Amino acid sequence: MDELKERILRDGQVLEGNILKVDAFLNHQVDSGLMKRVGEEFARRFARLKPDKILTAEISGIAPALQTGVALDVPVVFARKMRPITMPKDAFERHVPSRTKGGETLLLVSPEYLHPKERVVIIDDFLATGQTLNALANIVVEARAQVLAFGVVVEKTFEHGREALEDWNVPLESLVVIERMSSKKIVFR
Amino acid sequence: MDELKERILRDGQVLEGNILKVDAFLNHQVDSGLMKRVGEEFARRFARLKPDKILTAEISGIAPALQTGVALDVPVVFARKMRPITMPKDAFERHVPSRTKGGETLLLVSPEYLHPKERVVIIDDFLATGQTLNALANIVVEARAQVLAFGVVVEKTFEHGREALEDWNVPLESLVVIERMSSKKIVFR
Repeated sequence: MDELKERILRDGQVLEGNILKVDAFLNHQVDSGLMKRVGEEFARRFARLKPDKILTAEISGIAPALQTGVALDVPVVFARKMRPITMPKDAFERHVPSRTKGGETLLLVSPEYLHPKERVVIIDDFLATGQTLNALANIVVEARAQVLAFGVVVEKTFEHGREALEDWNVPLESLVVIERMSSKKIVFR
Repeated sequence: MDELKERILRDGQVLEGNILKVDAFLNHQVDSGLMKRVGEEFARRFARLKPDKILTAEISGIAPALQTGVALDVPVVFARKMRPITMPKDAFERHVPSRTKGGETLLLVSPEYLHPKERVVIIDDFLATGQTLNALANIVVEARAQVLAFGVVVEKTFEHGREALEDWNVPLESLVVIERMSSKKIVFR
């Protein structure tokens, strides 16, 4: 997606620890027009799979997942990272290490909104090591629903998330793929 | 907004502590079609104000704010509640008490994405006591930007948020207004 590449080159910033800061259009400020086109692009790639639902993780997955849900006219579930008092005790949960915040992140999905046999596409902002997507996919399986595909806005190949998700044997679509990056240069595939 | 009233009557659940659980379509699962129409309705009410930007608070404000941003074609900034490593040290910050999670919530907005003189509409999912909206408005003022209006999906009048925001002297638009609620009944204005 050329528009996204140009935007990353213009506004992205590479920070220590292989963090790509895209707070200008995705993670803190959201460019709503760009995000609409991101959702439409995911919808174009996933429509043939006929998903019933999009699953993502709060917080930064919400914008691209919601726009995909709007484009495909299906509901979007975002896994919560803190247990709200509205969450039932039998929620599906997984722990994943968090790099941008440090420590571990909890992912919680209520069985009220993820049902057996539902056809689920999992979307997130970044694919780095793949641990968040893997945890979300495990939640889908625990709900006896079906993982149809993964979609990420930005894939960083040098963190090997794609390999980590290979065993799921489902399509993995990235809107842009970064092969190398440093504070001076970002190299797309 | 009649569709929203009907949805609250069908899927909303009143929990202890005056919590209205709307996880089925807003706070955990998002009905993307409904949220699109929520955004369009806010856009219809706020277009004449010619906002430059929508400001909201993560997490549950993101969906309605983003759809409003899409409908008005303006960027959306969501205040962060945890300090990501990408957040500069001079971020605007406010503390607000959190009822659904307990304790205090921090709201952080980077000065990179909120500039002097920008015309800002503040949107959130609920208006209860008004403390979150008030904190966001104070951040806008600290950035020397302008608070144009507030928009909330659900106003609960019995928690007096409208009175708490009166001094801002700007329009406050609610898509639905709840006057009373109990586990048995929800009464709209």
